Amino acid sequence: MSERPGITRELADFVAGSHWRDIPAEVRREGVRGLINYVGCALGGCGDEAMGLAIAVLSPSFGPPQAGIIGRGERCDTLNAAFLNAASANVLEYDDTHLPTVMHPAAPVAPGLFALAEARGTSGQELLHAFILGVEVSCRVGNAVMPHHYRRGAHITATCGIFGAAAAAGKLLGLDAVRMNWALGHAATQSAGLVESLGSMSKSIGVGNAARNGLMGALFAEAGFTAAESAIEGKYGFAAVASDTVDLGKAVAGLGKDWEILANAYKPYPCGVVLFPVLDAVLELRKRIEVPVDQIKAVVVRGHPLLRERTDRPEVGDGRSAKVSLQHGVAVALLQGAAGIAQFTDAAVADRNVLALRARVTAEDDPSIPIESAVVEVRLADGSSLSENVKDGRGTPGRPMSDVELDAKVSECAAFGAPFVDVTALLAAMRDIETLGDAAHITRMTVPA
Amino acid sequence: MSERPGITRELADFVAGSHWRDIPAEVRREGVRGLINYVGCALGGCGDEAMGLAIAVLSPSFGPPQAGIIGRGERCDTLNAAFLNAASANVLEYDDTHLPTVMHPAAPVAPGLFALAEARGTSGQELLHAFILGVEVSCRVGNAVMPHHYRRGAHITATCGIFGAAAAAGKLLGLDAVRMNWALGHAATQSAGLVESLGSMSKSIGVGNAARNGLMGALFAEAGFTAAESAIEGKYGFAAVASDTVDLGKAVAGLGKDWEILANAYKPYPCGVVLFPVLDAVLELRKRIEVPVDQIKAVVVRGHPLLRERTDRPEVGDGRSAKVSLQHGVAVALLQGAAGIAQFTDAAVADRNVLALRARVTAEDDPSIPIESAVVEVRLADGSSLSENVKDGRGTPGRPMSDVELDAKVSECAAFGAPFVDVTALLAAMRDIETLGDAAHITRMTVPA
Repeated sequence: MSERPGITRELADFVAGSHWRDIPAEVRREGVRGLINYVGCALGGCGDEAMGLAIAVLSPSFGPPQAGIIGRGERCDTLNAAFLNAASANVLEYDDTHLPTVMHPAAPVAPGLFALAEARGTSGQELLHAFILGVEVSCRVGNAVMPHHYRRGAHITATCGIFGAAAAAGKLLGLDAVRMNWALGHAATQSAGLVESLGSMSKSIGVGNAARNGLMGALFAEAGFTAAESAIEGKYGFAAVASDTVDLGKAVAGLGKDWEILANAYKPYPCGVVLFPVLDAVLELRKRIEVPVDQIKAVVVRGHPLLRERTDRPEVGDGRSAKVSLQHGVAVALLQGAAGIAQFTDAAVADRNVLALRARVTAEDDPSIPIESAVVEVRLADGSSLSENVKDGRGTPGRPMSDVELDAKVSECAAFGAPFVDVTALLAAMRDIETLGDAAHITRMTVPA
Repeated sequence: MSERPGITRELADFVAGSHWRDIPAEVRREGVRGLINYVGCALGGCGDEAMGLAIAVLSPSFGPPQAGIIGRGERCDTLNAAFLNAASANVLEYDDTHLPTVMHPAAPVAPGLFALAEARGTSGQELLHAFILGVEVSCRVGNAVMPHHYRRGAHITATCGIFGAAAAAGKLLGLDAVRMNWALGHAATQSAGLVESLGSMSKSIGVGNAARNGLMGALFAEAGFTAAESAIEGKYGFAAVASDTVDLGKAVAGLGKDWEILANAYKPYPCGVVLFPVLDAVLELRKRIEVPVDQIKAVVVRGHPLLRERTDRPEVGDGRSAKVSLQHGVAVALLQGAAGIAQFTDAAVADRNVLALRARVTAEDDPSIPIESAVVEVRLADGSSLSENVKDGRGTPGRPMSDVELDAKVSECAAFGAPFVDVTALLAAMRDIETLGDAAHITRMTVPA
């Protein structure tokens, strides 16, 4: 393991010393997009069963109504609000993805900022600045401990997300470098989350804690609560515990010049990323198929071997497992002409027509096809066939989601989880968040009047 | 790594299915002693600077006054109470020690139980039963991942303590085996804490979270919030992340027959365990020295090489580092005739007489001396010398703390941190906790009227 002293402090210095003028225009723009995607995902997930249960469990311990829960009527203290808004933003697997680490950075980083905005007051620009810095810290800590960190079983969204949550909240609180260092130390000693938990509701506890405990770490640091200064790089620190392939240099190389948020992508579909080009192809094909669906004899998907390895699941039991089923995605998109939240619910999985069509979908390996591409062929009863070849799936690096597509995604999420929200007004406010005097306005627009 | 499926469920079955009649008398007795030691340590630590800061940070988020904070006047929700009472019980390094793992099991396990006793009501016997089971689970999970877990940098009191906290709270909540399994799953995905944090206040966040989040995991499980069933033994579960020397069999071997709490020791002094025989010897010697302390020319301590390796620190900066300084412990005990909390404060470290005497204390290795023994020689100005040889230091396996010594320790802690407490009445109630109808009575006896 390479050991480079002072990485924790170097990150703290960077965050504490960052000025808004240091943030390049394209980074600011991606920050805005990241926040829009975050709020959209939280609106989509706010009514999930796991959210209802979490609120039922936590509400007896709720403190004063300092902050709102996106898309819902309850209010609670800032720490519980951070937990719940992180859980909702991640629960549908629809959130952002930092491609080098496959981390979802916004869900842990953003909620504490919106909670502080309500409790203490902050401008939109300050919140955006803190969000960008928080994403930077989460992703850089992740870069330093990948790939072994995730391979061993650490759920990186939670385990590294807490660093960004602490850094971002610390920035809004105006921590100096010493206190920012402590905030990162408190994050390190609270870092937790297991890949084993994915596929159960317990995943949401890990992501919720990353947001809550990152914010808490910043608040403790603000008060003068000391932490280990070498919490990341120390002999018994985070990196040593987290990974056997540590490269601490990656945490700070090009700091302030290279921005990780530019490698952050937004999902066009609430499912596994390898399915994106497949679903693009299926939705295109559907426009061209002029016969009833029962005339489809077979659907053959050709793609990178990883596609089949990860998603060849003709049998699916519930909405959660449907998110990684090629057969379900293809069938439901062909039948319903969409592949949104409603298409990956338990109800969609149980639909008889979807079930019947799933049985006719097969996958074939083609190592010459890159992972962001796919070829889908539909064979009809009359012997004819149609084929669609997608080179860069939407939401992959070669074909990022456009602003228009992102807006449509937010609309879909709100329609699913919080249909009372005025999405047009919300999006207008968020696009202009740099000029928004009171960032708490965003949360207020997402809750019932 | 040996992989044995179902360890998590096996532990859950054991805890959920345990009856009071299954608990042997000596185990019950050690459970009572463990609770007495826990409450004593919390009384000693309740006024620590870190506690004041933590309450200042958390109180704006406090929920309803469901539970008390031992030794203090504030009341808060059960989750924050669990956090704070765990922090205070561990902050002085005076708590219990499970010798095979060097874990401090009570601080994470007990606080959630006393919080639930106030919020939901429970008998003393039920609380004691749950405490014993929680300690059992924490220690067994620790046994399965030691020694590599701690060596890598995981602070085992926090990382494994959370399992016991969840199991114990789950027992009080009456969880069935399926829900108990989920509670352990929620514990696994929240397991956190770094050795790097020891020596800073941040340590208390790890221990506090273990108690809080373990309780929270049990409450989530009670509500039907699902978790990974193989959260400990699964491919991407706790054990895989925690250690390269996993022996899952240790988590369940002899379950219900061999009890880990019988290997739980109580500290006679609030400092590193290797110093115990040294301090015993010094306090004995002091009774025999008939000249003023300025006649002491030198003190030579002979012990196992590990003693010198861990504690040969003539320079100490504060009370925290004094806890692992041979020179400080010897000097202050010789001068003040005691080695309690007051002797390991910043003030004691700064005392000029202590400072002067520290410079005259040296350590010598003697590999023939076991770690639980020590020989101390005091050389006087007149050329004479006195020597004391301690074979089994108090608080080591060969010489456990007696009930009388434990009572005296609680008195010392209360006098230091919460002098208003009626210790005699408190100890009487705790010794009879098996017959106590309302376990919340204990907490009420520790707070200002």
